[in-house]
Amino acid sequence: MNIEMIEAAAARCAGHIRKTPLIHSPFLDEIAGRRVWVKPECLQHTGSFKFRGGWSAVSALAPDDRARGVIAFSSGNHAQGVAAAARGHGIPAVIVMPRDAPQLKIDNTRALGGDVVLYDRAGGESREEIGAALAKDRGLTLIRPYDEPQVIAGQATTGLEIAEQAAAEGITRAEVLVCCGGGGLTSGIALALAARAPGMTVRPVEPEGFDDVTRSLATGKIQSNLGPQMGLCDAILTPQPGTMTFPIMSRLCGPGLVVTDAQVREAMRLAFLRLKVTPEPGGAVALAAALFHHDAIAGDAVILTISGGNVDPAVFARILSEGEVA
Amino acid sequence: MNIEMIEAAAARCAGHIRKTPLIHSPFLDEIAGRRVWVKPECLQHTGSFKFRGGWSAVSALAPDDRARGVIAFSSGNHAQGVAAAARGHGIPAVIVMPRDAPQLKIDNTRALGGDVVLYDRAGGESREEIGAALAKDRGLTLIRPYDEPQVIAGQATTGLEIAEQAAAEGITRAEVLVCCGGGGLTSGIALALAARAPGMTVRPVEPEGFDDVTRSLATGKIQSNLGPQMGLCDAILTPQPGTMTFPIMSRLCGPGLVVTDAQVREAMRLAFLRLKVTPEPGGAVALAAALFHHDAIAGDAVILTISGGNVDPAVFARILSEGEVA
Repeated sequence: MNIEMIEAAAARCAGHIRKTPLIHSPFLDEIAGRRVWVKPECLQHTGSFKFRGGWSAVSALAPDDRARGVIAFSSGNHAQGVAAAARGHGIPAVIVMPRDAPQLKIDNTRALGGDVVLYDRAGGESREEIGAALAKDRGLTLIRPYDEPQVIAGQATTGLEIAEQAAAEGITRAEVLVCCGGGGLTSGIALALAARAPGMTVRPVEPEGFDDVTRSLATGKIQSNLGPQMGLCDAILTPQPGTMTFPIMSRLCGPGLVVTDAQVREAMRLAFLRLKVTPEPGGAVALAAALFHHDAIAGDAVILTISGGNVDPAVFARILSEGEVA
Repeated sequence: MNIEMIEAAAARCAGHIRKTPLIHSPFLDEIAGRRVWVKPECLQHTGSFKFRGGWSAVSALAPDDRARGVIAFSSGNHAQGVAAAARGHGIPAVIVMPRDAPQLKIDNTRALGGDVVLYDRAGGESREEIGAALAKDRGLTLIRPYDEPQVIAGQATTGLEIAEQAAAEGITRAEVLVCCGGGGLTSGIALALAARAPGMTVRPVEPEGFDDVTRSLATGKIQSNLGPQMGLCDAILTPQPGTMTFPIMSRLCGPGLVVTDAQVREAMRLAFLRLKVTPEPGGAVALAAALFHHDAIAGDAVILTISGGNVDPAVFARILSEGEVA
């Protein structure tokens, strides 16, 4: 992985991915005690940054391989990103999804042209076996969600945009908080910024109980989550950092930050109220850290990602109704 | 009003207003039967396009006048736009608001530095008298919400951006649907597009029962709303088109479109679900027209504004909960 590979991904993605804005609100600045800049990837095609990695990976395939199609495992956002990227290239995409994934994500993946195969996460079915059999039969190429160089290079285009947009605002030094699951977005942004905005430090953010990356960074080796595999922040509940992403994060990132579900819900309400965008829970952890863990952050400006916005309306409505935002 | 005045407003606003993106979703395209391009001005500073006109007007004042401060009458979005523009210039702003305006808009106007003076809309207090007395005492300049050339020129910067962004997508011919109250945004965009994208036709969109502009355009003279003055779409319930905006709309715009409150609520849900942004009711009428009045629209692409997103969380939550969006 190097900056040339990221620049090449950006060139393949140009005109296909959406360049999301870098936005802010004086109301959020006041809560955080510093200027808060938000990169709302919920406005990306398919509602999350995953479309960047999907497009990068599909567009990087050799034409013959690409023509046979791709396959992905995903509980949601990677599924939609790969399905939409495959449709954009006119090729088939098989998406293996857990039966208990949010219904909206399953529906959207189908509507985006994905051939969805459901499996029973609790019942012990192996998605790897299901996928391997399908891939072999049809000659499909597997697009991994984060341990895949071209996927990381695609997510890294978010970092290229942050570097350019922050420079335009006069910001060259800042902590950059990234919602972190397997680490594809985090390591991609870290690689891009190391090359294009070396005064910035990327810090992964995770929900309480799923702080595998934070603990891995603190101990210097890969740690797993021990608790339940389900939680509010479904998009980023990976069991451990990737074998490809962890060394990158370990080399380039600052310490992780961990937020509570209550802070996530409050961040979702504030994003609605002050930014007019709709983060999903997993997409709101970095905003929650910026707003409610400001003592753990340095500098007079902080940049953060809202990584996705694919949240069921009933869930969002309930979270809006719960809150009392002054 | 001419394009030079609009370009001058754009130059004064550069670096202060946010250039909002032009976004779309294949799910919305499918409902509308054509490509639907959305200009989400809810992402503008203060949550609506009104900041453009506010900044344009305040920045155009002579320095001595500006230093004394400005005054505005508004139920909400113009109030916030003028308050924020005044604060950005370091000058005072008195905002005269009806006591029954949405609480969020009153709170925000105060938080943005506006000196809010409430009046009783139902009780017959005259905001003009209140305002005139304040203006005289303190030498404040009145910033009208739409019948004000520099405000129209500011709103017109939305049209300059649409022309440029649509051209980048290869679109030179389209109907452009604009959420319409007094007609400042509508006439501004129409002026900008007449000069920069003459293949486009602006069409105002209004809620049922408040279709004064549509009827005025159809009959060729200014018509008023006869019914109640309150409704779901609070941001755009002006009694009649402006004396300055109507001749512009009459010369440049196509026929108006009228949508129901049920269509507005459905458009709000679909904006949440497919675009990850949060229109207020008055900001969703143009999207409602694009989605549910597609037989009244020509061409294979339609462009529309989401003019604002300042909606109380409880209202948005209720509208999300009501719906059944497949």
